[in-house]
Amino acid sequence: MTALERLQAELGTIVSVDPAELTAARADRSGWVAAGLPLAVVRAGTVEHVQTTLRIASEWRVPVVTRGAGTGLAGGACGTDGSIVLSVAGMNRILEIRPEDELAVVEPGVINQHLNDALLEHGLWFAPDPASKDISSVGGNIATNAGGLLCAKYGVTREAVLGLTVVLADGSLLRTGRRTVKGVTGYDLTALLTGSEGTLGVIVEAVVRARAITAGETVTIGAIFTDVGRAAAASALVTAARIRPAVMELIDPVALALIAAHLGPAASAGLPLGRGAFLLLQTDGPAAREEAEQAVAVLRAAGGQARMSTDAASAERLLDVRRAAHPALAAHGQVLIEDVCVPRSRMKEMFDRIAEISAHSGVPIPTVAHAGDGNLHPNFIIPVDRFRGPDEQVVPEPIWAAAGELFRAALDLGGTLTGEHGVGVLKRRWLAEELGDTSFTMQRRIKTVFDPLGILNPGTMFAS
Amino acid sequence: MTALERLQAELGTIVSVDPAELTAARADRSGWVAAGLPLAVVRAGTVEHVQTTLRIASEWRVPVVTRGAGTGLAGGACGTDGSIVLSVAGMNRILEIRPEDELAVVEPGVINQHLNDALLEHGLWFAPDPASKDISSVGGNIATNAGGLLCAKYGVTREAVLGLTVVLADGSLLRTGRRTVKGVTGYDLTALLTGSEGTLGVIVEAVVRARAITAGETVTIGAIFTDVGRAAAASALVTAARIRPAVMELIDPVALALIAAHLGPAASAGLPLGRGAFLLLQTDGPAAREEAEQAVAVLRAAGGQARMSTDAASAERLLDVRRAAHPALAAHGQVLIEDVCVPRSRMKEMFDRIAEISAHSGVPIPTVAHAGDGNLHPNFIIPVDRFRGPDEQVVPEPIWAAAGELFRAALDLGGTLTGEHGVGVLKRRWLAEELGDTSFTMQRRIKTVFDPLGILNPGTMFAS
Repeated sequence: MTALERLQAELGTIVSVDPAELTAARADRSGWVAAGLPLAVVRAGTVEHVQTTLRIASEWRVPVVTRGAGTGLAGGACGTDGSIVLSVAGMNRILEIRPEDELAVVEPGVINQHLNDALLEHGLWFAPDPASKDISSVGGNIATNAGGLLCAKYGVTREAVLGLTVVLADGSLLRTGRRTVKGVTGYDLTALLTGSEGTLGVIVEAVVRARAITAGETVTIGAIFTDVGRAAAASALVTAARIRPAVMELIDPVALALIAAHLGPAASAGLPLGRGAFLLLQTDGPAAREEAEQAVAVLRAAGGQARMSTDAASAERLLDVRRAAHPALAAHGQVLIEDVCVPRSRMKEMFDRIAEISAHSGVPIPTVAHAGDGNLHPNFIIPVDRFRGPDEQVVPEPIWAAAGELFRAALDLGGTLTGEHGVGVLKRRWLAEELGDTSFTMQRRIKTVFDPLGILNPGTMFAS
Repeated sequence: MTALERLQAELGTIVSVDPAELTAARADRSGWVAAGLPLAVVRAGTVEHVQTTLRIASEWRVPVVTRGAGTGLAGGACGTDGSIVLSVAGMNRILEIRPEDELAVVEPGVINQHLNDALLEHGLWFAPDPASKDISSVGGNIATNAGGLLCAKYGVTREAVLGLTVVLADGSLLRTGRRTVKGVTGYDLTALLTGSEGTLGVIVEAVVRARAITAGETVTIGAIFTDVGRAAAASALVTAARIRPAVMELIDPVALALIAAHLGPAASAGLPLGRGAFLLLQTDGPAAREEAEQAVAVLRAAGGQARMSTDAASAERLLDVRRAAHPALAAHGQVLIEDVCVPRSRMKEMFDRIAEISAHSGVPIPTVAHAGDGNLHPNFIIPVDRFRGPDEQVVPEPIWAAAGELFRAALDLGGTLTGEHGVGVLKRRWLAEELGDTSFTMQRRIKTVFDPLGILNPGTMFAS
C-alpha cells in the first residue's frame, strides 16, 4: 500500500488528486510556484482528519505542507513535489465567543474578517489586521505571526494569541497556553509556535484575544513631502513626539507615480509626481482629533503639506491612495513584495539604501512602508512570463541579487529581513545570516524536537 | 583542581565563599530557603564572567542558580546545596536609551524603577509593573515573565521584550530577537526564554520596549461591596462594559479586616468590617474621567458604594488600602503568596472555592486580586517558626494540601496555577497536572536542547 492509498483508505473523499486542485495548491500570493506536483490535497474538516494525515505521513515519511487560505507572501504554504497538502481551509468554524472574557476560540480556517464580523456585536475586534484580512485565515495569520497596518498601536499577532491546539508530527495533540490574561506555567510554547510557518506542528484550534473596539472618532491625515527622506524623517518625528497613530503609511515617489497613473487624473489630483512622497495617518480613540492636530503640526514643521480629513468622503479619498498601491504595481507584472523592518530612526537611511540598490542594479523598487513600525515593503515588478517557470528559480537572479543587498542593508541598520510575511521558501537562504550561527543551530535543534523525521513543511524556513 | 578552585583561579575576588553571603543566597521573598549551602556566589560584572562561570560549571557538572535581586516569590533563584549562585545583580548598567525608537538596552541587574527613572525624561516608561518594582530587577522580571498591576491594559513582560543576549550552558552567546517593532525571522526564542526561570540560559542583556507615558489625568475609584462575590462580579462587569481601567484591584473580607486593623481606625475609616470587600480602580488616558464615571455607574448598578477621588490626597488614601495588604498580612507570620489566574468571568466562582477550601481546611486565606486580569493572590499566613526549617519541607503539609486544592480549583475553572510569579521550586509538583503529558514531554525536550547536562537551575520548574 502506498501513502496515497492509505490516505484514501482512511480518509475517503476528502483526499483529492484532482489535477486542477493539485496544481492550484503549488502557489500562494508570492508569485512563487513549487516545482512538480503534490501527492494529494487532504481537505481536513476535523482534528481527527489532521491527526490521521500526520500519522500516515510519519509512517510513510511523506512531507506535509499545511495550507490555509493560500494568501502567504513567502512561498511557505506551497505544495511541493510529492508532498501531502493538508488544507485546513474547511476547518472554519468560530467555536466560541466569550465576550465577558474578551476571547474567541476558532478553527484555523476562519477568515480574519469573518472573526471581526462575529465579534462586532459584542463591541470587540481581533486586532491582527493584515492587509489581506478579507481573504486570509486566522491560522495562517498565527503561523506567520502576521502584522498589518495597526501594529505600532495594537500589537502583532503573537500578542493576540492566548493558546493553541496543535497536532504534532506523530499525530498526537498538544495544547498550549490558556484562556486567562496572564499565565506563566512552563515555557511559552504558544509564542514558539506562533510564526513557526507549519514547521513545528499543525494548528487546529486557537484561543485568541479580542479587544474592546476603540471608542471615539477616527481622523485621517494626508501629507505630501518633496522627497521620501523628508517623509521618513517626519514619520519618525511623529513617533518621537509620542503620538501613536493607529495607521501611518508611507508611499515613496516610485510607487506614488504608479499609483497616480493607476488612479487617473481625477482621483490623483493633488498628488505630487516626480520626487514627491505621501504619508497617510489615522488617529483614533478619545483624543483622536487632538492627536491629529499635533501630528499635523509635526508634519508641517518637518516640511510636509499636511491636511486633515474633514469628513468620511475626504478620508476615503486619502485611504484610496494607499489601497491602490498593490493593484497599481500588479498592473505592470508579477510583484515580489519584500518586507524588511528597521528601527524607526533608521528608515530614512533604509530609503537611501533602496535608492542606491535601485540605481546600480537598474531595477525600479517602488516602496510602501508601515512607517510607525519601520516596516518597509520594497517591491520588485517582474514581467509575468519571466517570473513563472518550471522550477523554483523563477525569480530572476538579478532580482535576487538586489533583494539580497536589500536584506543586508536592513541587517546593517539593525533591522530584519522579514517584518511580517515570514521566511518561507523565498527568504530561507538569508536566514542564517540574520540569526547567526548559535541561534541558527538552536533553531534547528528545536525543529528536530518537534519534527524528528523532517516531514513538516521541509524547505520552508530551513533549506533542508 | 575542584570547580571552586578553578572558579577562583579564573575569576578571582568576584568568587565569594563568605558564609553570610552563601546563606543569604539560599532564600528569596517566597519564604522558602534551600537546604544545605551553595558552593560559591559569583558576583558577575561582565558577560565574560558569566561565560567563564558556565564553562566551568559545564566542565565540572555543577548546578548554576542565576540570581538577580532575589525578590522572587516561587523559590526559583535560591542557591541550592553545592550549586554555584551566579549573581547578575552587579550587571546593572543601562547601556542605551533610544527615545526615537522607544527602546532601551539594559543589563539584567537594572532595578525596574531605575529604568523608569531614566526613561522619564524622554516621556517614556517600562510598562511591566510588578508590585516589587522598587527592588526587583529587569532580568528577574524577564526570567519570570512578571506581571503586576497594569497588565490588562498595558500587557505582560513578554510584550515588552524585543530581544535578548543569553549565555548558554556551555558558555556560548545566543542573541535573539531584534530592535524593530516587528520581525518574524525564525522561531521566537525571545518569547521562549522569557519566563524560563533560569532553566534555559542566563540573560546578560535585554532590548526592551519603552512606551509613551500615558497622557492625561489619573482618576482613582474606591468601592465597597457587601461581599466578595458581588465585588468580583462587579469587576467582571466593568471589563464586560469595555472599560479598561489601568488598575483594578480587589481585596476580600479576610484581607480587608487585617488591613483595617493594620491601618488603625483613622486611616481605615469608612472601610467595612466583617463580610465587606473593597475594589480599587484607576483609569488613565485622555478619557480617564469619562471612563471613571462609566465605571462608577457600573459598580453602583452592581450594588457597590463607589466614589471617585476628588484630589490627589483622597486618591492616595484609597491606594494606601491596597498598599497595606502585604504588610498587614506579614505582621501575622510568614506569608505564602499564591498566584492563580482564571478567566475573568470565573473570578466569583474562584472566590467561592477559596472560601470552601478555607472552611474545610481551617486555614484563613486572605486574598487580593488583580481583578482586571482574573489573577488572584490567595495568601497563607504561617507562623514564622513553623515555616523556616532545615530543608525544603518548610511549608507545613496541610498548607500544601490546601494550596493543591486551590490549584486544582483554578484549573477546573479554565485557569492556571501561576499568573505571574512563576513555577520555581514551590509549584513544580503541579506543573505536569496543568500542562498535560504531551506538553510536559515537549517542555522537557526543549530544556534538554538548551541544557543537555542539566546544570541550569535544576529543581526549578522540573523536579529533576
